[in-house]
Amino acid sequence: MTAPLDFWFDFASPYGYLASTRIDGIATRYGRAVRWRPILLGAIFKVSGMKPVMEQPLRGEYLAHDVPRFARLLEVPLTMPAKVPLHALAACRAYWWLEPSDPVKAHALAAAIYHAHWGEGRDVATAEQVAEVATSLGISASDLIAGVQDPLVKDRLRAETDEAIRRGVFGVPFIQIDGESFWGADRLGQVEEWLARGGW
Amino acid sequence: MTAPLDFWFDFASPYGYLASTRIDGIATRYGRAVRWRPILLGAIFKVSGMKPVMEQPLRGEYLAHDVPRFARLLEVPLTMPAKVPLHALAACRAYWWLEPSDPVKAHALAAAIYHAHWGEGRDVATAEQVAEVATSLGISASDLIAGVQDPLVKDRLRAETDEAIRRGVFGVPFIQIDGESFWGADRLGQVEEWLARGGW
Repeated sequence: MTAPLDFWFDFASPYGYLASTRIDGIATRYGRAVRWRPILLGAIFKVSGMKPVMEQPLRGEYLAHDVPRFARLLEVPLTMPAKVPLHALAACRAYWWLEPSDPVKAHALAAAIYHAHWGEGRDVATAEQVAEVATSLGISASDLIAGVQDPLVKDRLRAETDEAIRRGVFGVPFIQIDGESFWGADRLGQVEEWLARGGW
Repeated sequence: MTAPLDFWFDFASPYGYLASTRIDGIATRYGRAVRWRPILLGAIFKVSGMKPVMEQPLRGEYLAHDVPRFARLLEVPLTMPAKVPLHALAACRAYWWLEPSDPVKAHALAAAIYHAHWGEGRDVATAEQVAEVATSLGISASDLIAGVQDPLVKDRLRAETDEAIRRGVFGVPFIQIDGESFWGADRLGQVEEWLARGGW
């Protein structure tokens, strides 16, 4: 077993959702774990000077057509949420609140949040909405709602964002394998190829 | 034989170059021709509000690493040109000068320009430099240099850019198959899948 893959994503990103449904399976085939790392892309856009894709003329229309098409190809459920873009602050903090004590459950929580938002179209903007998803995994709603207000949790999310920027993350999903970066759900094929061949 | 694919690109785009080395082969396997349509992405950025990728912090560094890696995967020659970004005005006009009278040779010229710039790292910014590439295909250098100054040719390039915008092109390479749009060299797999299955 070699080092885990890093998988950076923002819960607001539909391409992050699509990649999230495949990344564990791909890594597992090559004996690797995946470290899920939710971040707020908005903080990164401040450095990169990019704009959210949905706010870009022409490109936003493409995305609205491409995301459902991509989901059909992967055969994963997709319901466009009524309210986008999601401000995923509470969801990110909930993850980083849970992760130090129970990384496996935090991973399951992230997958459940992604499924609720993009698979079922539910809003998960508030701590209460995130807690509703979390209770189905046996996580205490009141603990989570208190947890996301913890200054240490807020610091952790900031530190994760800083590390992502330092590691070159400028968009999501963003995957690193032994220092090699791959950006975008459409690079999952190259990620798998890299793992299979050990680089090229 | 059904309708040809549309393949929009800018000679300045290395991902356009990478896609150009594969698109004909993919289309041919499914009995399709490809209509190569060089445009100036700068004109489209004025509408989309995007910035050239190389000018974006973080993303530019990724590109400098990703392009050679992608080229190695496809096993195509790549030499980073000393001078980027290329302003491909003369190259585009040369294509649209030749295309009405000899579309097959225009296609070959575009491939030769791409190879010279990204395969060999040569500068092809001026009409004289483009003509040097063209003469190897039996095209008259003096005819080409005069042709790119023809007002009808300038109009044609503007009309092509306008049509690209109308058809939703916001980046390159951009491929349309029977009205379905695919953006990016990393979507060649989906392009092939779409042709093989007739959609999904």
